[in-house]
Amino acid sequence: MEQSKITTICAISTPAGTGGIAVARVSGPKAIEIVDKVWKGKRLADAPSHSAHYGTIFDPADNQALDDGIATVFRAPRSFTGEDTVELSVHGSPWIQRELINLLIRNGASIANRGEFTRRAVANGKLDIAEAEAVADMIAASSRASQRIALSHIRGEYSAGLNALRNQLIELAALTELELDFSEEDVEFADRNKLLELARAINKKVSELAKSFATGRAIKEGVKVTLSGATNAGKSTLLNRLLGEEKAIVSNIHGTTRDTIEDTIEIGGILFRFIDTAGLRETDDPIERIGIDRARQAIQTADINLWIVDSEHPILPLEQSDNMIVVYNKRDLLTETVDGAISISALNDSDLSVLTEELIRRAIPMQIAPAQTVTNARHYEALLRAADSSARIIEALSTTLPTDLIAQDIRETIDHLSSITAPITTPTLLTQIFTRFCIGK
Amino acid sequence: MEQSKITTICAISTPAGTGGIAVARVSGPKAIEIVDKVWKGKRLADAPSHSAHYGTIFDPADNQALDDGIATVFRAPRSFTGEDTVELSVHGSPWIQRELINLLIRNGASIANRGEFTRRAVANGKLDIAEAEAVADMIAASSRASQRIALSHIRGEYSAGLNALRNQLIELAALTELELDFSEEDVEFADRNKLLELARAINKKVSELAKSFATGRAIKEGVKVTLSGATNAGKSTLLNRLLGEEKAIVSNIHGTTRDTIEDTIEIGGILFRFIDTAGLRETDDPIERIGIDRARQAIQTADINLWIVDSEHPILPLEQSDNMIVVYNKRDLLTETVDGAISISALNDSDLSVLTEELIRRAIPMQIAPAQTVTNARHYEALLRAADSSARIIEALSTTLPTDLIAQDIRETIDHLSSITAPITTPTLLTQIFTRFCIGK
Repeated sequence: MEQSKITTICAISTPAGTGGIAVARVSGPKAIEIVDKVWKGKRLADAPSHSAHYGTIFDPADNQALDDGIATVFRAPRSFTGEDTVELSVHGSPWIQRELINLLIRNGASIANRGEFTRRAVANGKLDIAEAEAVADMIAASSRASQRIALSHIRGEYSAGLNALRNQLIELAALTELELDFSEEDVEFADRNKLLELARAINKKVSELAKSFATGRAIKEGVKVTLSGATNAGKSTLLNRLLGEEKAIVSNIHGTTRDTIEDTIEIGGILFRFIDTAGLRETDDPIERIGIDRARQAIQTADINLWIVDSEHPILPLEQSDNMIVVYNKRDLLTETVDGAISISALNDSDLSVLTEELIRRAIPMQIAPAQTVTNARHYEALLRAADSSARIIEALSTTLPTDLIAQDIRETIDHLSSITAPITTPTLLTQIFTRFCIGK
Repeated sequence: MEQSKITTICAISTPAGTGGIAVARVSGPKAIEIVDKVWKGKRLADAPSHSAHYGTIFDPADNQALDDGIATVFRAPRSFTGEDTVELSVHGSPWIQRELINLLIRNGASIANRGEFTRRAVANGKLDIAEAEAVADMIAASSRASQRIALSHIRGEYSAGLNALRNQLIELAALTELELDFSEEDVEFADRNKLLELARAINKKVSELAKSFATGRAIKEGVKVTLSGATNAGKSTLLNRLLGEEKAIVSNIHGTTRDTIEDTIEIGGILFRFIDTAGLRETDDPIERIGIDRARQAIQTADINLWIVDSEHPILPLEQSDNMIVVYNKRDLLTETVDGAISISALNDSDLSVLTEELIRRAIPMQIAPAQTVTNARHYEALLRAADSSARIIEALSTTLPTDLIAQDIRETIDHLSSITAPITTPTLLTQIFTRFCIGK
């Protein structure tokens, strides 16, 4: 792209609404020049990078002041986008925010698309695609675990692992090519067993990464826990207790791209998404039956299903499953202890840690390694494909297949891994990735 | 207050919610020291004022990184509060925002009360009370006119006028005291007519300021316009047209202290608050009667009442009032023109400027002078009292009342005017003023 064709973009980068202050970001080759047109105070063209200045934003068309505020200058390449950037901090009135953006547009800036600042950071080599995607994950982070993974990925620790794998594959390719070149001379430059070992190590790593997605997705979206069981087992009381105990951090996640609102809470650094379901029983009431059908659907897609039992009138599930935890509620009414079962009183227990600790244990079966945890479905798909093609490398190396076919599988594996981090050339896919972002990032 | 007793406060200053970035403000004697405890990057204690730094926010307790971000240092007295201030710009996840505040509190900061940053600006002489109140008005500004007034008041242009008045009163007091001192010697140091002239000028100015509140309040809260008339006159169609034409700037004002949601729109720089009312007619339907009662109430408190007439079946109001504009709707069905009346077609007219221009003309009867427009009810009350006491000065000067009684009225007038701008010593009143603010300002 020629320098002259790169526009200068602007947007409000802080959350929508009223606040003490709001920040507009202006980024691009003319960022400083455009802001200087609407700025009274120190001439920003003369300001060093990373300096903040108090002044007045005004409309040069009628000389009317819009607001007094702070302009902070970040000069290329020492900015988030890698371009010249000015951040304008103004009073957080929605009216002022809107007028400020209109003023910047009238003076030569364009309104930024979703994620366009981050997209420019990618274009300017400040972030790779996986790091950029992690920026959106960071903004959506709603638990300690998801924040840790996102930050690690932003910092390139995840990309570094993928790049190391790619380098190993390139080494593998070089070694197999050597074998190809010299095979007619019967010189065994590369020991096939050594190649096989390397391929197996690569395949193992790729498969492990792909496998981490189950955990990564649960961390990112929240571990889905259904509360099921017969009617009047105390499911709703338990739900309220689980959500209410740390009410301050109960959140209703209004996802920008999700249609449902669910009650989530962070316990032990992990986000849990609790879903109360209709009590399961035979009924002739058509409305209740719809509720029961929905309950069954929710239970089927849950990560963990809590089957709540009324200890006085215990009704056990017809069939057990691996993800089910049977919880005896109203334990004060329990006549005999049940081996290995969890018993609580949702109403009376001062803490439910016997249950929440089991939830944490079940939710995250291992100590997570942020840099080795995949949270992105696009990456997961690429890793599945890379696992397939790297399995074919092993297969080929184990037989007497000619090395040029092996090279083809290596190439494919590299391509799949590269697609996770490397700049994507398809504009549609790029747009798909960045529409997950909010305006102003 | 001793330096050691001043706490260091922190809060998220940007609007609540998810965004590209969020900004936390830390202000107080230990602002830089506290942030340095949780900051990896350049040591902020060594950073000059108005400098921005990229680094990592981490928890010193477990060395876990929370986020990478920008810290901007503002050193006392060159900050909004007049204290050392650090602004931390982080990824705009609500989870991160909450954790950041918790982290700062664990490391010695206190959570800021509403408006506490601005209150400190007052305590440190950066703003007087009227200027501080204008900060809240600026954040609530929702039209060009309200923004212009708020900015002028923040900048002290309004306070300067009040201070000038106060100085004139002090001069008046000095002159009357001179008269008092020398009256026994029969030396007429101050000509009573000259004193009278000065007192009249002061009273006129105070009264004008008080009078400006009608306009100021309408500008700040929106000019309340009811749409009334018989049923089926096209009121709702007109409402939709008025609100819809510039749909982009229709706003639903969710006031923090208001219980109702009303539809407002800025036209010609002025905020209008349009209220559709139930069609007025005799009815036996009890629900409809409640609606009609409410309509009558709304009309009584409206700044402007549009009486909408169906041109085909014109039903005119039983009584006219000064604030009523009769609007003939469905003008294509009008059989004869009505002198001086406004006729429109809410359904078909491409623009309704014949009506909106009349609304603008009626809403703001004069060119507003931002520095001389009162928008604050507390100030209005003080001005009414000052107008009263300054009227008594004139009365006293016109008669042969002894000057020591006059001095008393002058003192009272000064006190009323001073209460608008000068630091208020009553903590309750201070708290009342600052609870209008959002957290983080």
